Amino acid sequence: MNRSYTERVDALEVLIGARAADTAVVNGRIVDVWSGEIRDGGVAITGGTIVAAGDVTGMVDDATTIIDAGGAYLTPGLIETHLHVYESSLNPTELARVLLPHGTTALPEAMYGAGQIGGIEAVRFFLEELRRTPITVLHQVPALGYLQNLELGLPSGPNSLDGNDLREILMWEGCVGMEEPPFIPMAEKDPVVRDLMERTLRSGQVVMGHGAGLPEAELRAYAAMGITADHEGVTAEEALARIRAGMVVSMRESCVARNQRELQRAITEHGAGTHNFVFCADVLDPVEAHDVGHIDQNVRVAIEGGVDPVAAVQMATINAARYYRVDHAIGSLAPGRQADVLLVEDLERFTVRSVLAKGELVVRDGAVVGRLVRPTYPAFLKNTVRLARATRAEDLQLFAPEGAADFVTTRVIGGDNLVSDERHLALPVVDGAVSADPGQDVIKLAMLDRYGKPEAPAIGFVQGYGLQRGALGTTYNPMYHNVLVAGVDDAAMARAANALAEMGGGFVAVEGDEVVAVPLELCGLMSDRPADEFLAAMQRLYAKAVELGCTMPSPFHNLAFTAVCGELPFLKLGHRGLFDVPRRSWLEPFVTPHDLLVNTPTGGTATP
Amino acid sequence: MNRSYTERVDALEVLIGARAADTAVVNGRIVDVWSGEIRDGGVAITGGTIVAAGDVTGMVDDATTIIDAGGAYLTPGLIETHLHVYESSLNPTELARVLLPHGTTALPEAMYGAGQIGGIEAVRFFLEELRRTPITVLHQVPALGYLQNLELGLPSGPNSLDGNDLREILMWEGCVGMEEPPFIPMAEKDPVVRDLMERTLRSGQVVMGHGAGLPEAELRAYAAMGITADHEGVTAEEALARIRAGMVVSMRESCVARNQRELQRAITEHGAGTHNFVFCADVLDPVEAHDVGHIDQNVRVAIEGGVDPVAAVQMATINAARYYRVDHAIGSLAPGRQADVLLVEDLERFTVRSVLAKGELVVRDGAVVGRLVRPTYPAFLKNTVRLARATRAEDLQLFAPEGAADFVTTRVIGGDNLVSDERHLALPVVDGAVSADPGQDVIKLAMLDRYGKPEAPAIGFVQGYGLQRGALGTTYNPMYHNVLVAGVDDAAMARAANALAEMGGGFVAVEGDEVVAVPLELCGLMSDRPADEFLAAMQRLYAKAVELGCTMPSPFHNLAFTAVCGELPFLKLGHRGLFDVPRRSWLEPFVTPHDLLVNTPTGGTATP
Repeated sequence: MNRSYTERVDALEVLIGARAADTAVVNGRIVDVWSGEIRDGGVAITGGTIVAAGDVTGMVDDATTIIDAGGAYLTPGLIETHLHVYESSLNPTELARVLLPHGTTALPEAMYGAGQIGGIEAVRFFLEELRRTPITVLHQVPALGYLQNLELGLPSGPNSLDGNDLREILMWEGCVGMEEPPFIPMAEKDPVVRDLMERTLRSGQVVMGHGAGLPEAELRAYAAMGITADHEGVTAEEALARIRAGMVVSMRESCVARNQRELQRAITEHGAGTHNFVFCADVLDPVEAHDVGHIDQNVRVAIEGGVDPVAAVQMATINAARYYRVDHAIGSLAPGRQADVLLVEDLERFTVRSVLAKGELVVRDGAVVGRLVRPTYPAFLKNTVRLARATRAEDLQLFAPEGAADFVTTRVIGGDNLVSDERHLALPVVDGAVSADPGQDVIKLAMLDRYGKPEAPAIGFVQGYGLQRGALGTTYNPMYHNVLVAGVDDAAMARAANALAEMGGGFVAVEGDEVVAVPLELCGLMSDRPADEFLAAMQRLYAKAVELGCTMPSPFHNLAFTAVCGELPFLKLGHRGLFDVPRRSWLEPFVTPHDLLVNTPTGGTATP
Repeated sequence: MNRSYTERVDALEVLIGARAADTAVVNGRIVDVWSGEIRDGGVAITGGTIVAAGDVTGMVDDATTIIDAGGAYLTPGLIETHLHVYESSLNPTELARVLLPHGTTALPEAMYGAGQIGGIEAVRFFLEELRRTPITVLHQVPALGYLQNLELGLPSGPNSLDGNDLREILMWEGCVGMEEPPFIPMAEKDPVVRDLMERTLRSGQVVMGHGAGLPEAELRAYAAMGITADHEGVTAEEALARIRAGMVVSMRESCVARNQRELQRAITEHGAGTHNFVFCADVLDPVEAHDVGHIDQNVRVAIEGGVDPVAAVQMATINAARYYRVDHAIGSLAPGRQADVLLVEDLERFTVRSVLAKGELVVRDGAVVGRLVRPTYPAFLKNTVRLARATRAEDLQLFAPEGAADFVTTRVIGGDNLVSDERHLALPVVDGAVSADPGQDVIKLAMLDRYGKPEAPAIGFVQGYGLQRGALGTTYNPMYHNVLVAGVDDAAMARAANALAEMGGGFVAVEGDEVVAVPLELCGLMSDRPADEFLAAMQRLYAKAVELGCTMPSPFHNLAFTAVCGELPFLKLGHRGLFDVPRRSWLEPFVTPHDLLVNTPTGGTATP
């Protein structure tokens, strides 16, 4: 990302007239994110470095490649501030292929998911893969690769990262800081997190927060520990609370959490300054990313919500670069910065036409023209999903309590969001076992250990998927990455689980004998296939899910978050059953009169 | 500056109710530089760390020290972005005593002046001295301690820093970057500057620029090399050019260059966003600093010029902290930041009443109450000014050219600014030598080597001091730090030079036998005396200068810049005589018909 000395001297020499630019984008309208102006002109480039934006006519000669912008707006490449590549299910190379046409040219990554499964070598492998694409990697320390769900008292996987791994990763070239260490390990003084925080802050790097659901006092406490940005706010008031606590607000807009419209009311209604806001997706549904967009979509949502278009572009570029302390290298069209340049058709609708990354034209008129070659994936990244034995339908039964009648009041996960609430519903008892109830839009949920441990499946129920028959399944479920299936009947669920194990992880939709599968060969988290092949398979899978009655958008990305995922509240499924995240305790599946006094129907945070 | 883990955990524990704050400022109006709001409340502090700003009533107990703000505004401590302590002539401890009542709690320093005279040990000594005061030091690499005037082809002092010294200093704890490497060594690829720039940028630190007088192309080339801020702009247009080149504008307002009123028109008239602006003094006249102010004065000048008061405070605090990438540690009243807090009486007039630094009350109702103890200064910092032999009046004669009549057209420095222009004036010839001419407000200038080299004094003339008799002298003249005297008669000038050498450096005003002297015992640059004693002596000296007819404000700080000081243009005095800085060439003192074709009367940059 830092331009080399030679590259910077080349830019200097163009400016003092000693040589000509290699490339010049001409006839554009420069969106100057430093001054806030829009002015006519072009961008001169040497190698991968911006010489200057403005009148570039004196900087070209016959050998200069001229790109006529035809009056398009010229903006810096867009910078994501919090994203997990693996949650897109695409390998890094193919995710780059999807994101580049949307103008994303830089993103932070820690590769924690791969680290949880494949250890430090998996982190290294995928960071290097991503770094070989035109996208610039702001590499971070994968705190979650160590924590997994440790801070909740839950076991980590056998290959999770340890403190030594994290300290080593912090020293790798290009590290910008630490990725979302949650509040609890700080408050409880986890020695590894403590040590990493100190090293990160001492080296002048930043810590991206993950302050999901924190009340104001804890949010401030989180800030006090050194967190200077957070992407877990969901209301305008939470945005303001973060800013007042000295944090940059990363506005999330993606399949699992569409928070931006509400958050940006802090700007449009409460008058907050735009320079404290940046954008993120966090979790990307690859189909949605392909069809709708990525950070370009955040820009559109901002503009539609009443944010000034230049300010929206600033949020997506210079603000993010400043936050990560890399504004000397990326985030603007200023001299000496990396030549990440977008040609944008219409500023208000923010339609990206062409993209230069590191001075190379990588997207021309919407089509990827840059070379993107997937590496050969080593064996240790594959075939990582093992069940202790083949799953049978009867393994997935949840027996009703003694003396239960036709119905039993059962805890049900309200599963339409990262924030899973707790609902109490009367579910039918069939042959002594509690059953899914499509009439109430409730399906059964089962988690099976993916490392081959001979544990009984954990069983729960979830509402909101619309599923009327069959089952869905995934091995993508942070932080567990277990085999997670949900369905109307146990046979379909068992078949889904077995199919997932057989293909080394992935997504499935099952109806009777029919299994529609999308394998995720890499760590059970990412496809090793080309994006178009994968996206077509996902479309078939989504079509099958809809055929089964599924009404949930991005059902697999939502299903994933019915499993315990760090401090994301409230009711979740863990390896032993239902788990109350705020209380960090296991819950009985059925509601007793005592529970009714202790638990509120939603939220689960009241005390008697 | 970074709060320790223990300190941050203490803040966390106050926030989660596990303990009470040590100190609470209550009954204030918080200027929230993150949100831009002003709201009622207080600031809770543990040790040297801010717990939170807002309603702090729940954070105190009987042991908490309560400071009643009485309705005063509470702002973060003010952050200087470019200052040379030695140019105030005060030692670091006593400068802190002068600056603290004005609300300055952090400043960047590289101690290059001391480094030029006393080498790396002098740099270390004075940084440590400053660090022992309540002021936070943002320590920088003293590029000028190596360059001195090297890039102009002029010799460095015998003890100047070398590349190894600079690399070592870069590694010292708390380094934030590099201090003002000028343009020429970059354009000409000085290997030491090149290496230092690369190391600085690679370690995520920033480079404060010194782009004096650069035309747009060179300014952009300077930015391309990695410079992300500059304090040498003087017009609103230059401010805009810097911002468009991707640089933060540090607005200078001090005795040698009052640039802010003009620069901030970029905001008030051209609509530039305020978040790209910060403040600096660069060079401080200690008397003016004491009487008028420091960064608080920049804030007042901004507000008087029409800048929103909260934006003015942001420029002086969070903007500066962001620029130096230390916003996690200083620059706001947010949780976990260092507890540098000002109580300000009136926001518009910005009158600082009391100051907390690192949680300690160091200024109460305008009076310094913090403990400031000067160290014992080691011998190597003293008695550093040596003349080859005592100066006689006849040593300072400048003989007119053969055949000159009563007058000779002579090059004269227009010396009212950092930017010294070239004037051509007819000066009287007396007994074959060119004489000062108070009638034209021209006095003679002489520079003598301060390291005891037996070189002939360099002679020039300067206009604009109003001096009618006697002489002024100084050993403060960056980058030379030579013995520099200016006066109406040679005898007074010789006496001034000898007095400076005898006292180990300082300032003098001489009339006949009377010598009014202010010694600068430390490297010939800084006084080892208490501030009040020094300031009283300076007042006596200034009174004497006025008595001699001097009309120049801060005459010693202006006289200093008649000597060559890096790339500051145009006509200056160097050790061999007059020097044309832009052309990097020595000039004859007298104007010949040929010169009249080549040189313009002012500026000296035209070519035939």
